[in-house]
Amino acid sequence: MKNTFKEISDKIRSSKTFLITAHVSLEGDALGSELATYALLKKLKKRAVIYNSDHTPPIYKFLPHSKLIKNNLSEDKFDVAMVLDCSDSSRAGKVKDYLSRVKCIINIDHHISNTFFGDINLVDPAASSACQILYKLCERMKIMDEKIALCLYTGIFTDTGNFTYTNTTKETHRIVSNLMHYGVSPRLIYENVHSLCEDKDLKFIGKIISNLKFDSSRKICWATIKKWEDTDYDLTEVIFSFMRLLKGVEVLILFKKMEKDKIRVNFRSRPSVDVNKVAQFFGGGGHKSASGTTIETDLKSAERKVVSFIKRYTNKLK
Amino acid sequence: MKNTFKEISDKIRSSKTFLITAHVSLEGDALGSELATYALLKKLKKRAVIYNSDHTPPIYKFLPHSKLIKNNLSEDKFDVAMVLDCSDSSRAGKVKDYLSRVKCIINIDHHISNTFFGDINLVDPAASSACQILYKLCERMKIMDEKIALCLYTGIFTDTGNFTYTNTTKETHRIVSNLMHYGVSPRLIYENVHSLCEDKDLKFIGKIISNLKFDSSRKICWATIKKWEDTDYDLTEVIFSFMRLLKGVEVLILFKKMEKDKIRVNFRSRPSVDVNKVAQFFGGGGHKSASGTTIETDLKSAERKVVSFIKRYTNKLK
Repeated sequence: MKNTFKEISDKIRSSKTFLITAHVSLEGDALGSELATYALLKKLKKRAVIYNSDHTPPIYKFLPHSKLIKNNLSEDKFDVAMVLDCSDSSRAGKVKDYLSRVKCIINIDHHISNTFFGDINLVDPAASSACQILYKLCERMKIMDEKIALCLYTGIFTDTGNFTYTNTTKETHRIVSNLMHYGVSPRLIYENVHSLCEDKDLKFIGKIISNLKFDSSRKICWATIKKWEDTDYDLTEVIFSFMRLLKGVEVLILFKKMEKDKIRVNFRSRPSVDVNKVAQFFGGGGHKSASGTTIETDLKSAERKVVSFIKRYTNKLK
Repeated sequence: MKNTFKEISDKIRSSKTFLITAHVSLEGDALGSELATYALLKKLKKRAVIYNSDHTPPIYKFLPHSKLIKNNLSEDKFDVAMVLDCSDSSRAGKVKDYLSRVKCIINIDHHISNTFFGDINLVDPAASSACQILYKLCERMKIMDEKIALCLYTGIFTDTGNFTYTNTTKETHRIVSNLMHYGVSPRLIYENVHSLCEDKDLKFIGKIISNLKFDSSRKICWATIKKWEDTDYDLTEVIFSFMRLLKGVEVLILFKKMEKDKIRVNFRSRPSVDVNKVAQFFGGGGHKSASGTTIETDLKSAERKVVSFIKRYTNKLK
């Protein structure tokens, strides 16, 4: 990996124009790594454009330069595409078409399912986040400032669930300690990312957690939501954080009806169960302990299929 | 403070028998610092007893040596009393009487309200936790192992609200990174401390967060709970963690009726408001952003008095 860092560093220094992108369904690590990369390239006086398939969720608009992110791009040429936190080029959504026209793709990611689609691939599944890998790139390039630190902290913080997931290592805390030298305020970032909930959202959450369902072993817990509308605020994570408090539960599932016959299914798990494999069975993917998919059927049938599959799957593990 | 560390280190090495205690209403930092101190003294082949006024909450029983904690003590003599995370000797509850009989009290604490009641006082309000101060003592004494690391991590982790409160510094993360060298598993500790909630508790919480009250400015948010029973699980922190998600709210209050005319009031705040002062006005205390008191009156009257005081108090700040 040492050579790859050097290869990327050399490529960045020798190139002039950059396209930056990340996966659809933007969250802290995707945006943090994009905006840290942007700030890094600007310090090197490069031309850089961030182009995303999806819009930036409002809770991340406190991140520096986030207003410059584009969701449309007129024809342009780039020397290098920096594709971040993206396991597969198709996860870049509509930006994928653009990538084929770029001379060199640099793929920086931490997903175990990464397909090595880049011309240069820096993939480290042991890293908590794409931002943790980018920190090391910055360290080697000897480039860091307040803005880069703020972006990287945000990505690490969100992808480790406030430093509580199994991906949190001594290296993660070492890096975060160094980032805090640059004036990062954990409280401020927490407030920005987590304290934008409206009263009505909290009531909606209250209703969901009062109606959780369990299998007979009480190891699987799920909620079915008849009408889900994406809000500015990431309610999915909040609901999971509630469900995670439950004693003894190993798999958590949310079934969200997005529209007729379109059910978004999110999975979270304790280390004993690999929900990446579960999601893959249903055409989706993600991480060992956090994954998702979309199933084209009605709510009841999605619930039945998925829960019975997980029951069989977890039984096999015993 | 450098001398105080040396003084304590010398006193420990030159003494034989130790009483260890902490504040009533035991939580992660109190227990973490007690049990880390116990493990430290055991490594030095000292005689040590942990004696607490309150019982150990079950969520902390995963901590090493926690079974050895005593809630009663037959007459005994100790060279040194190590009083941890305790702003005042009266906060040690019934153990206070014992302390007067001990030759030397070592007071290690991070509360700004500490009364320097010890013979040796190591008080650092800039430290996130008593455990963070104890880490430095261990560092100077060159003593550390898996058990001490696990206890210290737990205290730091709980007192910083998963590293999100304003007391979290680069020093905190540096220390945590070092503790993780000793095999601390953040996920396991998180699961132990946070994942012991029963279904009925989650329903109870759901009901509370569906009935929050706000003042007209929406800066103060509170809940009144007609019948509160302390459970094995710390529901207060969980309820606050969800109230904290609310946009724009600066002061959070829980009014819990413990018994007739006995209302426990807990306060949490954003940095703009000092709820230690609020709690002190009502005969309690704590930290700037987390405090509490008990008021001897009925629920409605406690609610009226406290909310109107805070309204006046926060108006004055503008």
